[in-house]
Amino acid sequence: MASNAPITPRETDYSQWYLDIIREAQLADYSPVKGSMVFRPHGFAIWEAMKGDLDRRFKETGHVNAYFPLFIPLSFLSKEAEHVEGFAKECAVVTHHRLRGCELENGKKGVEPDPAAKLEEPLIVRPTSETIIWHMYGQWIQSHRDLPILINQWANVVRWELKTRPFLRTAEFLWQEGHTAHATAEEAVEETLQMLNVYKDFARETLAIPVVTGVKSASERFAGAVDTYTIEAMMQNTWALQAGTSHFLGQNFAKAFDVTYQAEDGSLEHVWATSWGVSTRLVGAAIMTHSDDAGLVLPPAIAPIQVVVVPIFRKAHEKEVVLPFAQDVADQLRASGLRVKVDDREKMKPGAKYYEWERKGVPLRLEIGPRDVQGGSAFAARRTGGKKFPVPVANLVPEVQSVLTGIQEELLANALARRVENTYATDSYADFKERLTRDGGWYLVPWMDNAENEAAIKAETKATVRCYPLDAQENIGDKKCFYSGQPATHMALFARAY
Amino acid sequence: MASNAPITPRETDYSQWYLDIIREAQLADYSPVKGSMVFRPHGFAIWEAMKGDLDRRFKETGHVNAYFPLFIPLSFLSKEAEHVEGFAKECAVVTHHRLRGCELENGKKGVEPDPAAKLEEPLIVRPTSETIIWHMYGQWIQSHRDLPILINQWANVVRWELKTRPFLRTAEFLWQEGHTAHATAEEAVEETLQMLNVYKDFARETLAIPVVTGVKSASERFAGAVDTYTIEAMMQNTWALQAGTSHFLGQNFAKAFDVTYQAEDGSLEHVWATSWGVSTRLVGAAIMTHSDDAGLVLPPAIAPIQVVVVPIFRKAHEKEVVLPFAQDVADQLRASGLRVKVDDREKMKPGAKYYEWERKGVPLRLEIGPRDVQGGSAFAARRTGGKKFPVPVANLVPEVQSVLTGIQEELLANALARRVENTYATDSYADFKERLTRDGGWYLVPWMDNAENEAAIKAETKATVRCYPLDAQENIGDKKCFYSGQPATHMALFARAY
Repeated sequence: MASNAPITPRETDYSQWYLDIIREAQLADYSPVKGSMVFRPHGFAIWEAMKGDLDRRFKETGHVNAYFPLFIPLSFLSKEAEHVEGFAKECAVVTHHRLRGCELENGKKGVEPDPAAKLEEPLIVRPTSETIIWHMYGQWIQSHRDLPILINQWANVVRWELKTRPFLRTAEFLWQEGHTAHATAEEAVEETLQMLNVYKDFARETLAIPVVTGVKSASERFAGAVDTYTIEAMMQNTWALQAGTSHFLGQNFAKAFDVTYQAEDGSLEHVWATSWGVSTRLVGAAIMTHSDDAGLVLPPAIAPIQVVVVPIFRKAHEKEVVLPFAQDVADQLRASGLRVKVDDREKMKPGAKYYEWERKGVPLRLEIGPRDVQGGSAFAARRTGGKKFPVPVANLVPEVQSVLTGIQEELLANALARRVENTYATDSYADFKERLTRDGGWYLVPWMDNAENEAAIKAETKATVRCYPLDAQENIGDKKCFYSGQPATHMALFARAY
Repeated sequence: MASNAPITPRETDYSQWYLDIIREAQLADYSPVKGSMVFRPHGFAIWEAMKGDLDRRFKETGHVNAYFPLFIPLSFLSKEAEHVEGFAKECAVVTHHRLRGCELENGKKGVEPDPAAKLEEPLIVRPTSETIIWHMYGQWIQSHRDLPILINQWANVVRWELKTRPFLRTAEFLWQEGHTAHATAEEAVEETLQMLNVYKDFARETLAIPVVTGVKSASERFAGAVDTYTIEAMMQNTWALQAGTSHFLGQNFAKAFDVTYQAEDGSLEHVWATSWGVSTRLVGAAIMTHSDDAGLVLPPAIAPIQVVVVPIFRKAHEKEVVLPFAQDVADQLRASGLRVKVDDREKMKPGAKYYEWERKGVPLRLEIGPRDVQGGSAFAARRTGGKKFPVPVANLVPEVQSVLTGIQEELLANALARRVENTYATDSYADFKERLTRDGGWYLVPWMDNAENEAAIKAETKATVRCYPLDAQENIGDKKCFYSGQPATHMALFARAY
């Protein structure tokens, strides 16, 4: 339950503010399983809204959903050398398939793994599904007529993390993973970029988060990919958050699992691959981007409740008038497709209700008292502030929709302004270091791709290469790397990141 | 891929027929993980349609979704004595959280569980989530104002099964599990029965499967429940399939996890619980109930493709006329909410397309050639047979909807007729045994509840008590048990079952 405890202001402690928001808006809770969290209904509904929107975008671009096993045989992981290197250190391993009774140290009865039920080959709880999916693709693909395969999976995955933070980094998380198979490299690259753009549009249009798209440096690349593309979002503390990735996998997995197709000319070719994913981390991104010191703020597109209607009455005869009117307002809004709640709890004062829905991030509140009924209107208060204003019921649906659209646009504009304001261009490492330490922010710099220098900068400043922004690579010219002074290979975006 | 291999007729081998349908309609595939299957896109889309429909019904009855961890600490399972007894023998156990490199027997490099990363307490992959959810409810419930809690979870679960059958019984499966908490026993029982009826209505209206509702005998009860209610469906071979269960859990889990609430009078009371679930087993139920020797048959409500439009042309000038017309027909149908595919593959004859979509269970096919365009109509063929007929495009949407509704009703009527025809009432065990062996079928018999006799009958006939049907308990009177001759306690439904 919400504790009704104070929310730490962002200025005081940004990390604690984030945790306070999650607790007070009842989005998630800690679980007794180290690293795993519980998605409470209000938090899960945000993910459901995101999922519905993304799923539509995937289907519009020709993808279908399927479902592959949770468990991956240990030997599969080893087939792609970089892949196993990347994931071996954080795998949950299933070794037994039965329990047996035992006596515990305290003398009570308990259970333990049954030694007689040890698996011949241990199973990994999927950290990602390339290996098992490419094993299956090997059985499904024979001819060029079987290509492309455009499959997405909604699933839970496990990556054993020691330092966790709700939504942003947890041992188990929910995500979608697209896995596609193509006849040519060109087609696979095109798919990789198409899905990057689907993510970018989704972030902008639905989450009201303006993201930078770019390609990752070698050291931040997905284990097994040729190229990893990313969308990077700026949080309110100016840290970056990797919000989604799209990988061009080349023929790495096709070769590891020996997946070939017969081309039209009869030759056998290895298949080309992509994979791409976003996760429940996006819920954290949305919270961190828009919320304020009073609680959660959500873009209307993903708010589980978009409008809360609060009927106000003291006496029975007022209730008789106000309640049906409020219900009717709610029904009209619902009929137009909006998610609406009527808060008709008795024994609770309107002010207490306002406070609760403010903390829970409902974008628009409609207050309805006896005088509003007489005047044929509702009194509207936006979560994001501004003067309260009456909405005539005669024009209810278009007016509410327009207010919600306005809030959605305002949140995007604010986030974009913040990013622009806090993104700096510099050629000087000294300048970068000084300003980063003082002001935070993102830094667009000329850079010579080099893993050792990357590590050195990270050690010194905690900043990493977030990406090589796609739209910033044109004018490198004869620029020199801001760190090494060598000829620059890329324009790089440096920032501290979650 | 579909092998285009023959489908074994039901009469020849019902089990093989089922597997052939799944292969040829590309619903599922075997995976390299023992007991786990792959849901291929066409099979997964059936589950998605079911899920959407059920989710709406859950929300309409006041439930919200949440998500709890995949892993359950070993010690949790032991807290409810019957619960651990019921699930210990089929648990996947996670014992390590990291892999390390090793040399394999063949000299190659591999990975193995890292002994230095052994978990202090092993984790169970959830076979069901009562224990972890009631642990959390213990933290969320203090007062009667926190009740009821009406939460549902969509999740994957693992029960280690050795004998598996696609959809019907697999080690990992997808399901929903509702877990509710109430202040009184009456309210919890009411919830249990409400959800049983939601399942019954869903089976009837959406799956076109008429189910019998009843209560399970003690030996078939969920491990930890006071009462288990079930919906039972008859497959075409007259075997029964348990298609969903709803459990009244009493205060068993509240006591195991010490979950109490303060009542209005200030006293502390243990909370009352229910849980209820259906799984991807329902996909198997739908396949087995409706399909025929030519392939999959699906009720339109859950068909991933409800209408396939096949444009027919030979020459370019025909294509120019036929294709836009076909697309327009499809668009009109889609705009009315139907799931429609235009099969415009070239280099493939119409007959081959008909054959493929018949195997895949598309309820309605619309053939459109140049003469149909001229006549302003499409030529319709129902998957379930009957004479082909023209559908005037001027009246397209209502006519197609009416045909689909007709198919949905016809499938339900057929299934109901089959169940009625194959359900017998008898007072004689000899008669039951002889007829069951000869004809299969379901048997409604007077019965004295007794686990030993149940086991003896199962050993002798392979039939089990499916349930005590709710609508058959009124007239037991002074009937004698058909097996023991003792006074009957229930009217019981016996059948062989999956």
